[in-house]
Amino acid sequence: MIVAPTSELTTFERACRRQPTEHTPIWLMRQAGRALPEFREVRKHHSLLEIIAQPELCAEVTLQPVRRLGVDAAIIVSDIIAPLVNIGMEIDLKEGVGPVVAHPLRTHDDLKALRPLEPETDMRAMQETLRMVRRELAGKDVALIGFVGAPFTLAGYLVEGRPSRDFITTKRMMLETPDLWDALMARLTEIALTYAQGQIAAGAQAIQVFDSWVGALSPRDYARHVQPHMGRLFDGLSAPDGKPQTPRIHFGVGTATLLELMAEAGGDVIGLDWRVPLDEGWARLGGSERVAIQGNLDPVALTANWEALREEADDVLRRAASRPGHIFNLGHGVLPTTPVENLERLVAYVHEATPTPAPPPLGEGL
Amino acid sequence: MIVAPTSELTTFERACRRQPTEHTPIWLMRQAGRALPEFREVRKHHSLLEIIAQPELCAEVTLQPVRRLGVDAAIIVSDIIAPLVNIGMEIDLKEGVGPVVAHPLRTHDDLKALRPLEPETDMRAMQETLRMVRRELAGKDVALIGFVGAPFTLAGYLVEGRPSRDFITTKRMMLETPDLWDALMARLTEIALTYAQGQIAAGAQAIQVFDSWVGALSPRDYARHVQPHMGRLFDGLSAPDGKPQTPRIHFGVGTATLLELMAEAGGDVIGLDWRVPLDEGWARLGGSERVAIQGNLDPVALTANWEALREEADDVLRRAASRPGHIFNLGHGVLPTTPVENLERLVAYVHEATPTPAPPPLGEGL
Repeated sequence: MIVAPTSELTTFERACRRQPTEHTPIWLMRQAGRALPEFREVRKHHSLLEIIAQPELCAEVTLQPVRRLGVDAAIIVSDIIAPLVNIGMEIDLKEGVGPVVAHPLRTHDDLKALRPLEPETDMRAMQETLRMVRRELAGKDVALIGFVGAPFTLAGYLVEGRPSRDFITTKRMMLETPDLWDALMARLTEIALTYAQGQIAAGAQAIQVFDSWVGALSPRDYARHVQPHMGRLFDGLSAPDGKPQTPRIHFGVGTATLLELMAEAGGDVIGLDWRVPLDEGWARLGGSERVAIQGNLDPVALTANWEALREEADDVLRRAASRPGHIFNLGHGVLPTTPVENLERLVAYVHEATPTPAPPPLGEGL
Repeated sequence: MIVAPTSELTTFERACRRQPTEHTPIWLMRQAGRALPEFREVRKHHSLLEIIAQPELCAEVTLQPVRRLGVDAAIIVSDIIAPLVNIGMEIDLKEGVGPVVAHPLRTHDDLKALRPLEPETDMRAMQETLRMVRRELAGKDVALIGFVGAPFTLAGYLVEGRPSRDFITTKRMMLETPDLWDALMARLTEIALTYAQGQIAAGAQAIQVFDSWVGALSPRDYARHVQPHMGRLFDGLSAPDGKPQTPRIHFGVGTATLLELMAEAGGDVIGLDWRVPLDEGWARLGGSERVAIQGNLDPVALTANWEALREEADDVLRRAASRPGHIFNLGHGVLPTTPVENLERLVAYVHEATPTPAPPPLGEGL
């Protein structure tokens, strides 16, 4: 049971708790990114890892979409491989490619590179950034989201050594050497847990767990080789009895056949991609009752003209039907080619399109 | 209703018709490919497009997996972009990349490049190959499968200009300029239909329609922008009343939320990828009753050791439960790194693992 004083909560946080809100809250994965000219300007002079290492700069780019778009939540600018970089792994964020790992992880011996994360030293910049952003957002109806990469998705990068579509080596490790796989997943779960807890301690009001690539798995492999670790991660992020729960958002792409297993592993909010009609996902997962639902506009719609975009946004809103516990978002991240006007219009449209509370009784205020 | 004299049919063809078989038939997408040393040998001297253009050579590589693996069906060696090359489009099969289109298709004007396919001239080599393979297979319990790329998957290559994961430009065309999209899809449907009919005329005993990348779409976009064209394609491949139907296999990857719509568009056999548990797909689609089911081992399992592979194969067989209308296959193509021993063992295992007919009554043959 989520316990929290309603009065102090932002609209976003109320939606995470499946409480009624005055408008549907909206934020967009990768809202701070190349679609914003002010972000591109910063990126001319700094790599992403440089931005992450400088709290003032990182707070600035985290807040850019709040200022320009009026979204209901900021998400800390970082990368899911950041905690691995912080514990000393050699990972390069290669332009146009993604994370490239100098020494892909393949053996028990390689696991030594995965030392535990020490929040005091390894998260200093991130925690400072979170505190700065919270100060900037004080008194505003905008929440701050932290995030971590889920163990499977992190393992996928570490084992393959670079972004992959099929995760052949990763899945083979899972099938052939389940002991090694479990040891790897256990370490990554520990790192993700410490990292998420450190973000909550520094002011994150929700944590999104990105299991972006877990859709490569069959339900059977997910249940055997991933779900137990995810269960431990979400359990570790459960508030003690009587304490307010920091909402945990559980997200992946291509997860149509995994959703129930993912929700079973944990999450107060489940993120859907565009392949699952939102009302169907809602019914399958017990939206409004058991979990809140986040999603699920196709990011490609955001690159189209307003007419086409509005039609797709209307479809999402229609399926959500203004029920409590809907957070409008994309099914995956904002594409770099997205026109910034579309982002601005979409946020305003979602805010306006959803029911506002009944007007004050006649006579009042006259 | 599928009408055909049972006695003349191969095991594979009987399974396509949901008739009981003595063993579960098995073939593997990309069974003729880099996993076979004899294929790699041929590819040292010839590109794929060269092989396709030479009936004798093409028949040889088509038959390689029949000889080595003992599969129940051969599939003609080709590429889904072959008919587009044959009508004069400049497409290069770039090593390690895939099809690269010289002039990506983006406007109504660009559609001119898509002239109709003329079977007599544009399919001469392919038809000759099919006839040669059929002659080689005469009297054997091995069927010959032809195939075509589905219009969406072909459009994806033509519009993006190269293999894509997100199909951003393709989907944007679909959303923003539905007229252009429909005109493109109509032309590709016509080409695919002519190409499939030409293969049936030359001896193909089944046609697999590869809509490999359609899983990028939401059910809504599929229903509006793809399904009507697929319906026309499958209708065009329906046998006239009273004539035996050449089985049509409808396959895509990542299609968990599209399966019912795909089956509605058409197909006597529906191919599942590994993300959908075979028994669940069976129930959703009416396996044994309305359609046969093909699939759905994860290709990565075929790269693992025999113990792990057998466990995954057992899971597929258990879910199929020897019901009529199961064709064992992968959820996608054989990976080039697959050990050839695994292919050999899997085929033998599936043949042995499935029920054989009751032994002759005691006394007979003594």
